[in-house]
Amino acid sequence: MARIWARICPAVLVLLCWSAGAATPAAAQYSSTISELIEEFVVANRILADQGVIADGFGHLSVRSPIDPGRFFMSRARAAGLVTHDDVMELDLAGKPLDERGRRMFSERFIHAEIYKARPEVNAVVHSHAPALLPFGVTGTPLRPVSHMAGFLIRAAPVFEIRDAGGDATDMLVRTPELGAALAKTLGQAPIVLMRGHGFNTVGNSIKQAVSRAIYAEINARILTEALKMGSVVYLNEAEAANIAKTNDASIDRSWEIWKVKALASTPKF
Amino acid sequence: MARIWARICPAVLVLLCWSAGAATPAAAQYSSTISELIEEFVVANRILADQGVIADGFGHLSVRSPIDPGRFFMSRARAAGLVTHDDVMELDLAGKPLDERGRRMFSERFIHAEIYKARPEVNAVVHSHAPALLPFGVTGTPLRPVSHMAGFLIRAAPVFEIRDAGGDATDMLVRTPELGAALAKTLGQAPIVLMRGHGFNTVGNSIKQAVSRAIYAEINARILTEALKMGSVVYLNEAEAANIAKTNDASIDRSWEIWKVKALASTPKF
Amino acid sequence: MARIWARICPAVLVLLCWSAGAATPAAAQYSSTISELIEEFVVANRILADQGVIADGFGHLSVRSPIDPGRFFMSRARAAGLVTHDDVMELDLAGKPLDERGRRMFSERFIHAEIYKARPEVNAVVHSHAPALLPFGVTGTPLRPVSHMAGFLIRAAPVFEIRDAGGDATDMLVRTPELGAALAKTLGQAPIVLMRGHGFNTVGNSIKQAVSRAIYAEINARILTEALKMGSVVYLNEAEAANIAKTNDASIDRSWEIWKVKALASTPKF
Amino acid sequence: MARIWARICPAVLVLLCWSAGAATPAAAQYSSTISELIEEFVVANRILADQGVIADGFGHLSVRSPIDPGRFFMSRARAAGLVTHDDVMELDLAGKPLDERGRRMFSERFIHAEIYKARPEVNAVVHSHAPALLPFGVTGTPLRPVSHMAGFLIRAAPVFEIRDAGGDATDMLVRTPELGAALAKTLGQAPIVLMRGHGFNTVGNSIKQAVSRAIYAEINARILTEALKMGSVVYLNEAEAANIAKTNDASIDRSWEIWKVKALASTPKF
Repeated sequence: MARIWARICPAVLVLLCWSAGAATPAAAQYSSTISELIEEFVVANRILADQGVIADGFGHLSVRSPIDPGRFFMSRARAAGLVTHDDVMELDLAGKPLDERGRRMFSERFIHAEIYKARPEVNAVVHSHAPALLPFGVTGTPLRPVSHMAGFLIRAAPVFEIRDAGGDATDMLVRTPELGAALAKTLGQAPIVLMRGHGFNTVGNSIKQAVSRAIYAEINARILTEALKMGSVVYLNEAEAANIAKTNDASIDRSWEIWKVKALASTPKF
Repeated sequence: MARIWARICPAVLVLLCWSAGAATPAAAQYSSTISELIEEFVVANRILADQGVIADGFGHLSVRSPIDPGRFFMSRARAAGLVTHDDVMELDLAGKPLDERGRRMFSERFIHAEIYKARPEVNAVVHSHAPALLPFGVTGTPLRPVSHMAGFLIRAAPVFEIRDAGGDATDMLVRTPELGAALAKTLGQAPIVLMRGHGFNTVGNSIKQAVSRAIYAEINARILTEALKMGSVVYLNEAEAANIAKTNDASIDRSWEIWKVKALASTPKF
Repeated sequence: MARIWARICPAVLVLLCWSAGAATPAAAQYSSTISELIEEFVVANRILADQGVIADGFGHLSVRSPIDPGRFFMSRARAAGLVTHDDVMELDLAGKPLDERGRRMFSERFIHAEIYKARPEVNAVVHSHAPALLPFGVTGTPLRPVSHMAGFLIRAAPVFEIRDAGGDATDMLVRTPELGAALAKTLGQAPIVLMRGHGFNTVGNSIKQAVSRAIYAEINARILTEALKMGSVVYLNEAEAANIAKTNDASIDRSWEIWKVKALASTPKF
Repeated sequence: MARIWARICPAVLVLLCWSAGAATPAAAQYSSTISELIEEFVVANRILADQGVIADGFGHLSVRSPIDPGRFFMSRARAAGLVTHDDVMELDLAGKPLDERGRRMFSERFIHAEIYKARPEVNAVVHSHAPALLPFGVTGTPLRPVSHMAGFLIRAAPVFEIRDAGGDATDMLVRTPELGAALAKTLGQAPIVLMRGHGFNTVGNSIKQAVSRAIYAEINARILTEALKMGSVVYLNEAEAANIAKTNDASIDRSWEIWKVKALASTPKF
């Protein structure tokens, strides 16, 4: 436990050593908090892979540090389905690693950094290329909630057009703080933002909320894709959506339990 | 066996102890009946998970007690793919547990309770969020039988609009006896009822009938979704549908055998 | 080997015993032929299950006896994914079992019997409910070859409307010799016949040909379903279709090898 | 290592023996290069099978020899999901094997040979029948990049109509050098060419590039198929596509790592 913790977060270790002088139990508590968070973070990566949200080597999850809101954890550039404790890095909101150790980072870490800057209540971010969401981003068809499991959408998901912020000749990636800030601006107060020709991001106040939003956004997209071909669609109204979103938030653990069982059975041991 | 039975149904145990005084063989028979039913119930939950009818932590199955028609069995609030004997609870038709033991219940148990009240011949109910059914509920496109395996549909499935019974600001859940009664009224004498923006329920005179109806409703929905895009659709007429439904009911065990084999191979041991 | 053979085909055993008096090697050859055929038949059932052609307890495969063209082998009424040697029964062209031993038969064995009567060159028949084919049968949209792997279709697949032969109030099943004969008439000289609201059958000069036709008919149906939504479709012309069909027939073993490996890994041992 | 190498490439062995006289280290280096390439080739075949690019016994991968640009390696005619080291053959650009040993070859090896002739910078070719691509080939709907992972497409994929080169009565297969040359001409400088009613080919400067292009072309086809039904589509422009293609090329290993783990878990050991 302590060993893993030490690897992940030396800066925090200093803080802890300092606080340990005053209060060892506090240090132990911090350590345990981080350990559990990293454990959940690794499991969440496997879930995202197993549920088809991040099927390949692209897409990523981050979680804000519970100790320092100016920092967040993220895997080194590696497929979510293979992430282990040792892949976890700590970054500041400028996207700089505190503990690089020669590990390659995701170039789009600025998505996460800038959202954390703009949204103090957000503690986790998912970035995904799940195919079911893409048609909405490239056609401008509003992604709105038709399944009560996606009530969190409330309204149509905003769409980030990188040409507006980066011009007509980017490589489509949010690879600078400026592009990240533009994306965060498009996200606004929403729980999700589509990226034209690229994918989408969900945010949450916890890993579980951000991850479950990504999973149910994908399901809602598949349902809506078919419903739109059948005729006029009745969406959840704002009250319904807001109410069921609150209810669902209180029940995330119920899906998490089976997602975790499935994910750990389908991805390599860690 | 007796231990499991005792956990599940203390009220019935009293009855059995009473009857045991008069006739021990009868008590043993009751016990064996319940044990076998719970075994089938657990397997059925795993089948619903493996066949994609209940993929996550939501959706549920219930079965009416063969001893007291005013009671039914249901899992505690847990993913169908993980349900074990110890998760099974017994409830009365007011949705009150007889044996709570601190276990959290599904808030939508009133779907089951009210259907059992309204439909004396119904002995099992499935509640599902399977994506293939949702487009029909949100567009009003009639879900009618195009596959003979879904002959039980006979006519178009009724659609429950929760706004009619609960107003425009529910959380979409059937979480009261009143909403459950309204849903049961929409169901009427049908084998299935769609829930707008939510999912659907199937009913049956047995676990196997309710479960197989859910599985084949999902397949029929997928087939119809594509057929509707091709042109004018020839549905089963009422005689064809009723006749094949009767035939299929006599052959459920044939699919059950392979569904069970697959489900037990894909979900954790119990 | 001999034991299995004896179970399957007592009538043939008599013949063999007779011929054994004159020529033992011939008897051994017969026995070995049948044993290998049954082995292939069992594997083929598992392949049909694993490839999604027969996903549940319905749908069936048959193969004509190489010894007596007036007989064929078929499983007892059991899911294809679970069929073992002991499930195999021998039937005559009236659909009567030679070796019933209390085993329940498929009520639609007349599909097979009547096709064998009408088409002397056909040695195997698949009956399937695969969802991708159903939309074509219920809308009358012609199922024609768009993938060269389905060249065997040559022209549009004929569609069997059971109302023409059985009236408006059947249970949709081909459960009599008369309905079977009507189906065989609709099939004509084609390699496949769709059944409205029910499924389809493929025929072949061998198990491998009938099975591979079923698998590629399903893939062709999925491709065509999407192509039809995109615009005007270029189909294989008759020469292209006939030519590639001949080529593919010579290469069936190449797909069979991997289908078998996958099927045996995904279904129970036998 | 040496044994496998010797089996694969006797012509090269002669060269090595010759060079070995002068410089043993050079020979060892050649041997190691080829061994590693064949290892990657076998893994790549399994990946193509696991990712659904080559699901059955058809479709194939080739890689140009790093020693002699006039030669390439390819499996004998066998399902990609089962290819092992011993299946690998070396061919010249006339499609003639250097080491036949009675092994049956793919009749469409001329696709590979002629592309290697026409495109000196191409070192690997994938031939696939993946269903998602077929609708584009048979309707002429342009396959253009909507996902940044398919930026390599840049423009619409060219479509090869075999009737133009081979007339109206081919068996659809590119089974001669002439047809291969016509296909290579249609391919031109593109990274992919669709084949009407048949499938598609991707090319790359390495196995990893050709394989990842095939995988992401399939995903892009699925996304575009749905987007086209929703309305007007915003495609990547040429600058965006070219830029992200370059970025993705630098990150192939990240997806390769998980593709390999999944493929080796789902296909037989080798």
